[in-house]
Amino acid sequence: MLLCDIGNTSYHFLDESDEYKRSVGVFHPETIKEKVYYISVNSSVNSKLALLDNWIDLSSFVNRDSYYETMGIDRIVACEAVNNGIIIDAGSAITVDVVRESTFEGGFIYPGVNAMQKTYKDISPALDYAFNFSLNPNSLAKNSQDAISYGYLKLLYSEVLSHKLPIILTGGDADKLQALFINATINPHLLFNAMHKIIEKNL
Amino acid sequence: MLLCDIGNTSYHFLDESDEYKRSVGVFHPETIKEKVYYISVNSSVNSKLALLDNWIDLSSFVNRDSYYETMGIDRIVACEAVNNGIIIDAGSAITVDVVRESTFEGGFIYPGVNAMQKTYKDISPALDYAFNFSLNPNSLAKNSQDAISYGYLKLLYSEVLSHKLPIILTGGDADKLQALFINATINPHLLFNAMHKIIEKNL
Repeated sequence: MLLCDIGNTSYHFLDESDEYKRSVGVFHPETIKEKVYYISVNSSVNSKLALLDNWIDLSSFVNRDSYYETMGIDRIVACEAVNNGIIIDAGSAITVDVVRESTFEGGFIYPGVNAMQKTYKDISPALDYAFNFSLNPNSLAKNSQDAISYGYLKLLYSEVLSHKLPIILTGGDADKLQALFINATINPHLLFNAMHKIIEKNL
Repeated sequence: MLLCDIGNTSYHFLDESDEYKRSVGVFHPETIKEKVYYISVNSSVNSKLALLDNWIDLSSFVNRDSYYETMGIDRIVACEAVNNGIIIDAGSAITVDVVRESTFEGGFIYPGVNAMQKTYKDISPALDYAFNFSLNPNSLAKNSQDAISYGYLKLLYSEVLSHKLPIILTGGDADKLQALFINATINPHLLFNAMHKIIEKNL
């Protein structure tokens, strides 16, 4: 069974246990002839896929009533798979969502690691540092690398911990954030697992 | 007396009570013939100004020992002017510095309003919203505009308040952040006041 989670920048496939990504800019979905079960937050991709019979959009099987209208289907599917936790999905954006006793309490969107790195660099070449993911979150910064790392990472860290819930890390940059959220559970396949459940229940 | 605070994007002048900005990209400092007292964080501007006798760099009168080597002179000058407080200087970057009982405890650097707006827009056109500066910081987001506003503003808000110090807002976007930091003191001329003091003391 072929699953696909489509984000802002890539098609993320899972073919049984084989996982791979294709860039949104260059991949042609019509080259795949077998059935693909997908979710997508990418509106330009959505309009292409709507024309292809073998691409099955799982979003139609999800009850969106508990969520807000413009919330990405990836976030909704992840929330549906969690009973109690704060979900950090670290991709081109970092989405953070709070589910308490199976109820979605709300969330927020933070720039992804690459996007934020570019942001600092574009503000000034003097801020062109890689983030220090091993930053001590309990100490204000006294050098430039830590000053941007604290700005980006420590603020996220404090917010996430303030909700006092189990932390679930997923997405392409989950491994980078693991150094900061040392008690988090890493679940790289949270979305694919949730998609499997939707298929089992509905198809 | 002509003062100038030079940032990443602009020359910010104060001529007695007359204030104006000139873009770093197009302004020619040699067109000014009178004496200018300045501080600058812009290395490409610095090399031009070093050749002009009437541009007096105030950084040489500041004792940098209490600060870190690559810390911007604007942040240092602001810290020197404050005895007890957390200084938010909202320009192309937002620098945040903590001074407790006249001792610099450290700080961090966060992207400025325009830079962060562009960051979200570049991640996805679905995130191209203006920030809601009147956001309720006590409630997780349930719409897209609040989701990015919470990500950007609430995280900054929590961090700043956690230091339990008087909040001093300065820089070009201080007025925007005032809606969030309702108890802050706005001091648009914090840097110019500090520069005046350096001149009185040393020149």
